[in-house]
Amino acid sequence: MVSTKIVVIGGSAAGAKAAAKARRLDEFAEITIVQKAPDLSMASCGYPYYVGGVFNDRSQLLCTPAGVVRDATFFHKAKAITALAQTEVTSINRPKKQVTCRNLRNGEEKILEYDKLIIATGAKPNMPPIPGINLEGITTLLTMADTDYLRKICDDKKVKSAVVIGGGLIGVETVEALQLSGIQVTVVEMLDQVLTFLDWDLAKLVENHMKSKGARLLTGKGVKEFVGQDGLLTGVKLADGDVINCELAVMAIGVRPNADLAKEAGLDIGKFGGITVNSYMQTSDADIYAAGDCVEITSRISGQPVFAPMGDLANLEGRVAGENVILGNTVTFPGTIHTGICKIFDYTAGSTGISIKAAERSGLTGYTAVVNASPDKPGFMGAKILVSKMIVDKNQRLIGYQCVGLGDVSKQIATAAMAIQGNLTVEDLINCDLPYAPPFSLAIDHFIATAHVMQNKLKGRMTGISVQEVWDKLDRGEKPFLIDGRNPNEYEEMHLGIGELLIPIGALRSRLSELPANKDTEIICFCKISLRGYEAESILRAHGYTNIYVMEGGIMAWPYPRKK
Amino acid sequence: MVSTKIVVIGGSAAGAKAAAKARRLDEFAEITIVQKAPDLSMASCGYPYYVGGVFNDRSQLLCTPAGVVRDATFFHKAKAITALAQTEVTSINRPKKQVTCRNLRNGEEKILEYDKLIIATGAKPNMPPIPGINLEGITTLLTMADTDYLRKICDDKKVKSAVVIGGGLIGVETVEALQLSGIQVTVVEMLDQVLTFLDWDLAKLVENHMKSKGARLLTGKGVKEFVGQDGLLTGVKLADGDVINCELAVMAIGVRPNADLAKEAGLDIGKFGGITVNSYMQTSDADIYAAGDCVEITSRISGQPVFAPMGDLANLEGRVAGENVILGNTVTFPGTIHTGICKIFDYTAGSTGISIKAAERSGLTGYTAVVNASPDKPGFMGAKILVSKMIVDKNQRLIGYQCVGLGDVSKQIATAAMAIQGNLTVEDLINCDLPYAPPFSLAIDHFIATAHVMQNKLKGRMTGISVQEVWDKLDRGEKPFLIDGRNPNEYEEMHLGIGELLIPIGALRSRLSELPANKDTEIICFCKISLRGYEAESILRAHGYTNIYVMEGGIMAWPYPRKK
Repeated sequence: MVSTKIVVIGGSAAGAKAAAKARRLDEFAEITIVQKAPDLSMASCGYPYYVGGVFNDRSQLLCTPAGVVRDATFFHKAKAITALAQTEVTSINRPKKQVTCRNLRNGEEKILEYDKLIIATGAKPNMPPIPGINLEGITTLLTMADTDYLRKICDDKKVKSAVVIGGGLIGVETVEALQLSGIQVTVVEMLDQVLTFLDWDLAKLVENHMKSKGARLLTGKGVKEFVGQDGLLTGVKLADGDVINCELAVMAIGVRPNADLAKEAGLDIGKFGGITVNSYMQTSDADIYAAGDCVEITSRISGQPVFAPMGDLANLEGRVAGENVILGNTVTFPGTIHTGICKIFDYTAGSTGISIKAAERSGLTGYTAVVNASPDKPGFMGAKILVSKMIVDKNQRLIGYQCVGLGDVSKQIATAAMAIQGNLTVEDLINCDLPYAPPFSLAIDHFIATAHVMQNKLKGRMTGISVQEVWDKLDRGEKPFLIDGRNPNEYEEMHLGIGELLIPIGALRSRLSELPANKDTEIICFCKISLRGYEAESILRAHGYTNIYVMEGGIMAWPYPRKK
Repeated sequence: MVSTKIVVIGGSAAGAKAAAKARRLDEFAEITIVQKAPDLSMASCGYPYYVGGVFNDRSQLLCTPAGVVRDATFFHKAKAITALAQTEVTSINRPKKQVTCRNLRNGEEKILEYDKLIIATGAKPNMPPIPGINLEGITTLLTMADTDYLRKICDDKKVKSAVVIGGGLIGVETVEALQLSGIQVTVVEMLDQVLTFLDWDLAKLVENHMKSKGARLLTGKGVKEFVGQDGLLTGVKLADGDVINCELAVMAIGVRPNADLAKEAGLDIGKFGGITVNSYMQTSDADIYAAGDCVEITSRISGQPVFAPMGDLANLEGRVAGENVILGNTVTFPGTIHTGICKIFDYTAGSTGISIKAAERSGLTGYTAVVNASPDKPGFMGAKILVSKMIVDKNQRLIGYQCVGLGDVSKQIATAAMAIQGNLTVEDLINCDLPYAPPFSLAIDHFIATAHVMQNKLKGRMTGISVQEVWDKLDRGEKPFLIDGRNPNEYEEMHLGIGELLIPIGALRSRLSELPANKDTEIICFCKISLRGYEAESILRAHGYTNIYVMEGGIMAWPYPRKK
């Protein structure tokens, strides 16, 4: 029997996974990984945590859970896979089914034959041609080399000030890492918010937390130039002319598919520059598969191709490619529902499905969104507030969920992700059976509570108004009648100070005379999380007031300055 | 307009929720809660945490998140609800639509008229007529009075030894509370395991953890008698004659519906003794609804009525009842999928859907189960091992999931619960899109990894054998050929010592000669979590061995004594 020859280009997440899966399905296949970088199977999502000193043993980024470094010897012995590190594939010869590769240490060229080829060349950073971009002190955080460079900077404690350009996932994780190392970090983000998987309102809560940890945030700002002296970075000049002095700049304005090889080989490329694959992870060449950050996959929400460079998806895609190269096209990868999460200091931010922003961009209509704040567990178990936004389509099917806060966001997002994948509707969610015990949740879990608020809104029992709408009204000089339904002691601790009248919910029925005589006057109710705001609406409606709104999420969702 | 008269019997979870919901839907309804206990809206699931000193402010068990005690004044002011505490309903007169109640402080009787009645009388403890059960020192942990009694015992530090009878949810939570207070606790459980929502194998891992925290566990033991002196408890005599000396015994052998009033009123009662309700939470009397621990609800797994006394369900049921008494039968409660969770010291145990035990009990066939162990996140982020059992039906639809361990069990169970409610199959789960970042999960989440193992098993790529089957083989004197695929340093740290041969996976291909010459010999492979055990199976099969098994979950799922 002639053994199948499998060549895998790229040995990080998708490539290593594909190779391992192929091996498990065919002990006698000849499997070769060609990896440009010196390391294999790097846990690249862990780089910021090593930089930030969450752990100090660098080899943990390269280890199996049993503590064995996944180097060429490991691949050879444990997987019977030949792994050629520091080796670059320079071309793919499709007619001959060969790849040419070059050993980067000694320049030697080598031709590898394949029956099936898997391309897992990953992504490369967006590096716009900003003047000065080659100064020393400018880096990305995408490779082990970047990681070592930044870790040394953190350890050396010489750099005092850094600029992180870009407020996406890697950007904010880098901010945390550097700031925790004692470096004063400024984030420069071209858009009007960090973390674009969140809508603006929730992103602002994240930004407030980052600021509370000492990071500076400049949103809506572009970089014009890197300023330097003697080849060393000394500052970042913004488009508005301001200069931020710094000795370090981290470029984190996103990545794009590293699909050059595939393109040169004539494979189909999609509109985001990623390799086009079908659901078998097969390219336009039936003998070539691709997986990971170099491909475009399907959005399960829109049905359209998207570029989704996420480590978890890369592994799943690699697993599918690895199986199909051995067994033929037997398994499929369904695509992404855009689930993402990140930790930012003590805060977590996550999202799954579609955001309002994404819905608007795609022209979706008829959806309903609601913001809800509530504790993640009982006060006596150390409750932390979560702020979530739930989005349902016109059939009341869950299509999006975002959550931020100090509490257990991860469970919320996992719950929502499964609900989206199960095509569940609000009707399903309001009575869903989630695990409850005081160490883990409220009797009515935050997720279910959010569905309840959504249901109240959909049934017309709660007329929501967003914090932005309230802010905009005030900004326009409007003077809506504002009721804060909390108790005086709560008010003393914290309040918005935007002209609100404090009427504790328990006193509202007896203090209706303090409300406007004209029952059509616009009245906006809120409290800390707007549960009492909602109760106030019910009471006022019953007493004939016709124009009542509840400020969704209450003070906990208010991202603007508070008086106290 | 004449206002609707709503009477709610019971003011804990379901009753208070129903009353509050009714109020929000009808500001002018006349709503009265009649509550036998002195307190209202008690967070009864929090009792063990107050007893154990997790928090010290008793009022937190009775507070809103804003810190207001939910007493009669609160209900009056904030909800315009009349709450009659320490008042017992003595009878329901259905023809007259009246309830008679008695003030327990002064004995005064009162008749309340209702248009709609909600019965939320909760549950009562099983208290078998064991001799000596009235001795001082024997209690339950179901009421505020019990809680105060036990908290005082913990604070007084006089009691040295306690017996908890029953190893269910409340039992194990009580064990933790008492043990953390310095009391030596012995659990006496009639069945052969604690926490019957788990199968035996996972329950044993929980028991091992409890033992590691100093608790004593006696399973398969019945209580014959409470022994005392001068009216005070001095010990518990078991059916086998052994006596455990103790000054305190907590009865926690479950609860049953408190449906006496409903029964006396002639309402339909189900086979578990709970009030029969339809999906509107309506009893056999169209004007009487019921919710919470006094009712039977529908199992969404079996379609059969079940008794599911859980605080979260009680709240959801109450919400449904509260809406329907005001608006007519507009909303339904779909029932439970049997989701439960509890914390036991540093461990968490949770379950949703059906267990093997429940499947066998109900005569279900054609299902497949698999046990998987894997870390909850990367090693460098402080990984903790989770051990899960996944069960799918003959159509590969997820019908059950159990998880135990030191890691984030709560997210696993929530994820599985939503997957069950979404009718997802293994095919859906293997590529599901869950939130991934190193602080929260592995690139392939434990839940997805478990689905992968299930898929491998279903496709015949992994032939699993359970730890029990292996143990039973050894117990019968069989000598299967056992391969531990780990490295020598891992073996040094921990090993089973059941006759296994250590062959690191990386050496297996070159050490095949050490295996039995007869390739039909039974060989059982494992490692710490049996991922390498699975790889070993693939290798051996490819080399012609025909009778290979992987011990599911590996050493991490092994509940029996280890040599090291």
